[in-house]
Amino acid sequence: MSMKLKQGSDLKELLIDSQKRVNTTLNQAIERVASDEILSRSMRYACVDAGKRIRPALTYGSALSVGGSISNADVPAAAVELIHCYSLTHDDLPSMDDDDLRRGKPSVHKAFGEATAILVGDALQSLAFELLSSPTNPIKPVTQLKMLEILASAAGCRGMAAGQAIDFNAKGKTLTAVQLEQMHELKTGALIKAAVRLGALSHPSVKQAELDALEVYATKIGLAFQVRDDILDEISETTVLGKPQGSDLARGKPTYLSQTGLEAAVKKTDSLATEAISALDNFSSAADPLRELAEYVVRRDH
Amino acid sequence: MSMKLKQGSDLKELLIDSQKRVNTTLNQAIERVASDEILSRSMRYACVDAGKRIRPALTYGSALSVGGSISNADVPAAAVELIHCYSLTHDDLPSMDDDDLRRGKPSVHKAFGEATAILVGDALQSLAFELLSSPTNPIKPVTQLKMLEILASAAGCRGMAAGQAIDFNAKGKTLTAVQLEQMHELKTGALIKAAVRLGALSHPSVKQAELDALEVYATKIGLAFQVRDDILDEISETTVLGKPQGSDLARGKPTYLSQTGLEAAVKKTDSLATEAISALDNFSSAADPLRELAEYVVRRDH
Repeated sequence: MSMKLKQGSDLKELLIDSQKRVNTTLNQAIERVASDEILSRSMRYACVDAGKRIRPALTYGSALSVGGSISNADVPAAAVELIHCYSLTHDDLPSMDDDDLRRGKPSVHKAFGEATAILVGDALQSLAFELLSSPTNPIKPVTQLKMLEILASAAGCRGMAAGQAIDFNAKGKTLTAVQLEQMHELKTGALIKAAVRLGALSHPSVKQAELDALEVYATKIGLAFQVRDDILDEISETTVLGKPQGSDLARGKPTYLSQTGLEAAVKKTDSLATEAISALDNFSSAADPLRELAEYVVRRDH
Repeated sequence: MSMKLKQGSDLKELLIDSQKRVNTTLNQAIERVASDEILSRSMRYACVDAGKRIRPALTYGSALSVGGSISNADVPAAAVELIHCYSLTHDDLPSMDDDDLRRGKPSVHKAFGEATAILVGDALQSLAFELLSSPTNPIKPVTQLKMLEILASAAGCRGMAAGQAIDFNAKGKTLTAVQLEQMHELKTGALIKAAVRLGALSHPSVKQAELDALEVYATKIGLAFQVRDDILDEISETTVLGKPQGSDLARGKPTYLSQTGLEAAVKKTDSLATEAISALDNFSSAADPLRELAEYVVRRDH
């Protein structure tokens, strides 16, 4: 397993190493638990070698920023990514967002059928909690338990699931800027915050002041992330984005763009990135990957 | 909250009290975490005031059998039931078993639409892990962690999800008796085993020999439970069963009945119940509810 990540490593290295390490952890986990061949293959399809791994990079970056080790962050990073991949798999289903493309390839239900896609999402969610609660996890039990509570809460009715419910009910309606922000905070922000918190907690001697600062950082980039997604949904080509361009707007889903216009949305992401970086003022250069990630989130083109 | 359950209470009391206590725990949990009105209502629809609560009764019965307290078993019992209700909600979906009726009322997707049913199942799964990992849980952290691992593993690729995958792939095929038993053990038995294990673990001073005996008990009734389901699917009226009669056979799903015939299947459940009860030979009368539950599982008419 790659051990290249170190304090002060640059962003590109962080993203590449995050991808490698998460793929290794996920491959090993699926190998260990999934004996059914079709289930195992479809789960790998949904979560291995796919995506930018921004959430795991945040978990690793957060662990580094407080002086933690990379290997302690492997399980939390993989667990967060599993929750993310389960939500993508279910969001793409015909009765949900009905997206045929994901990360540049057919979405799970296009590749394996709808029933398997539902099952894969369910199994990825279970696996996240199985990994985090495993006795082989190097983190001490009380901290594991705290991580489990954070992740379950971010995935469920106080996070992603609640955001998704608001999203359903908002189709074709106009939300206020405050409502839209709240929806994004639940749908995307909660898991991004969990990614950052789990990374920091993987270091046994993390301080409360560090956790508080990282919470502010995570809140800012969580929102920036979703606004950037809305911008990309408006301006990108399908080939770059990996899903049909303009698909959210076409479905009548409320986005920042439909409310504020492109220019204001870009300004919003810039100021959010600046605020995220400011939250790390008291951190050493060990937080540089997180600082660069904040810039990356608002500059990325897919 | 009812505190009627005590050692040696009879089965009817156990089932009624299990229902009450689980409803209370689930209502409180949903009230606490789900602020979205539609999500909260549909989650309640899927899991409150519904079902026989056999799994929670097993959790409570198991806690009592080793001298544990009822209140310590509340959270584990509710968590197990949440996993069960999530799986029912997803299994009923059109692309899965396409069942319109569940527990005598329209299934979740019939009542709230398919997208909400997917989301409800997802949120119920998250809630199970959120409850079990909550710091307000009266059980000590290391035991909470152990319970989380057992439950996640029973829900995921080493349990329910794997059984479901085998079930998909088996439609229209003939499985051997061994393959069929393995499928049932994963699909139904794993969660029933988890229900029993979590109950026993909720008592801080449970002994390994007790856990081992309960494991045997749980394996036997897990299988008996599924065979009885197959029998009921064949012989019951829709009004009694709460779902269309003969629906599994009609879908070409392999069942015990399609392999062994009715008489052999009934004999099988009887001998499994006897073996389950024998496993509890060294237990006091505190295990009477579990003994009665074994009989109930193979006698129930819905």
